[in-house]
Amino acid sequence: MTTGGAPFTRRTPRVVSAVKLQRRKDREAQGAFLAEGPQAVASALSSGVVREIFATVDRIADYPGASLVADDAMAALSETVQPQGVVAVCDLLDVPLADALAKEPRLVAVVLEIRDPGNAGTILRTADAAGARTVIFAGDAVDPYNGKCVRASAGSLFHVDVVRERDWSALFSQLRAAGLQTLATSGYAARDLDDLADTGRLAGRTAWIFGSEAHGLPDAALSESDEAVRVPIYGGAESLNLAAAAAVCLYASARAQRS
Amino acid sequence: MTTGGAPFTRRTPRVVSAVKLQRRKDREAQGAFLAEGPQAVASALSSGVVREIFATVDRIADYPGASLVADDAMAALSETVQPQGVVAVCDLLDVPLADALAKEPRLVAVVLEIRDPGNAGTILRTADAAGARTVIFAGDAVDPYNGKCVRASAGSLFHVDVVRERDWSALFSQLRAAGLQTLATSGYAARDLDDLADTGRLAGRTAWIFGSEAHGLPDAALSESDEAVRVPIYGGAESLNLAAAAAVCLYASARAQRS
Repeated sequence: MTTGGAPFTRRTPRVVSAVKLQRRKDREAQGAFLAEGPQAVASALSSGVVREIFATVDRIADYPGASLVADDAMAALSETVQPQGVVAVCDLLDVPLADALAKEPRLVAVVLEIRDPGNAGTILRTADAAGARTVIFAGDAVDPYNGKCVRASAGSLFHVDVVRERDWSALFSQLRAAGLQTLATSGYAARDLDDLADTGRLAGRTAWIFGSEAHGLPDAALSESDEAVRVPIYGGAESLNLAAAAAVCLYASARAQRS
Repeated sequence: MTTGGAPFTRRTPRVVSAVKLQRRKDREAQGAFLAEGPQAVASALSSGVVREIFATVDRIADYPGASLVADDAMAALSETVQPQGVVAVCDLLDVPLADALAKEPRLVAVVLEIRDPGNAGTILRTADAAGARTVIFAGDAVDPYNGKCVRASAGSLFHVDVVRERDWSALFSQLRAAGLQTLATSGYAARDLDDLADTGRLAGRTAWIFGSEAHGLPDAALSESDEAVRVPIYGGAESLNLAAAAAVCLYASARAQRS
């Protein structure tokens, strides 16, 4: 992939093609997405999914085989205000649900119809930190390969099995068949996280289901889950924000599964 | 405060004066700040700190005594893309540290030199949810009355004692003198949260100290704390984001203090 000649510009066909990956339909068409910055590119390289790397002159030495690009090309490839000088084109990472469940994960996170890429990416990062092996984007959720989601995941997109299930009608029964209890978060649930921890139930293999901050989970998801669970609110706040609630739930499971 | 005449415009002196409260130095000069949207205004009214309410014609009926403003005035008063039609001018809420500690809070959150208003406001909201009675903005932290911090706090700014300690050199000894252990979060700490939970130490009265996502806590804060604590990372993630880590720590304390 090395280039002996002039650096690529924003008009070089390979750059033009890569820039298109900022759009979902082109990601689907090419089966690829962009990872930006040294941290994400390092995770992508470890995962063996890198097709091509574009780097500016100050970064190129760190990436053997990378294509040298001019600043205007990097500005076009990057979706951030201050580009970090390296962008990788990566294969989509999706794993079929059955393959992910065959690995018998103890902890799974499901983001159901969460549309905000920052929230979805942060939950993905938190799920990875808490030891979840699988993160499922269900229903009309944000594309996990959306640039903002990739950045919010801080590399975790490459660490876990990412599953996309646009039709989630069979999801809950598949999770149950795989031996996972399904716990759905809801601010209105009768039982709270402390109840479940006290009864030892959090020690079991668990899929946590998280809905959007604006709308919560659809009724069908709550009724299909084994249990609706509320994070207890001890003070005056009406609720927690979504990423904070997910962190509390996932870490409560992680701890219970290890004690 | 009712107005029988034409609605206020963005040039009406009281509107001009209120718009200035979007800047820190004017907040300090006037001893006031802006709370925007029905949820925040309701919390402000419950706290008895409202000086004046500006509302558009579709909202004015909900706020007896409010000043009617035209859409251009609301657009100027609001810091959001889609104004919600009501903004309140509120007294600054600061409580002196000694007064807050005299109430013997069991759980305290300290945001030390956290500059991002969204992060600080989210931690404030999470601390309130976890039952913390006091949130301390220490050192060169963001102004708690910054509009983005107020919005991220989702009303919690009005529920807890907000303390500002620009000079934090004596803060740790004052917390200790009030019977609070000081636990500082650090990704490099030798002890993790599970260790502390296992030994029962989280059940004690606690002040959690959080540093910025970019820089963590300064060395001086780590050495002055009773213990540096790391949130355990069970998977491949390098770290948690700040708000998620704070949620895990604060809820671990909340649960331990109640079991």
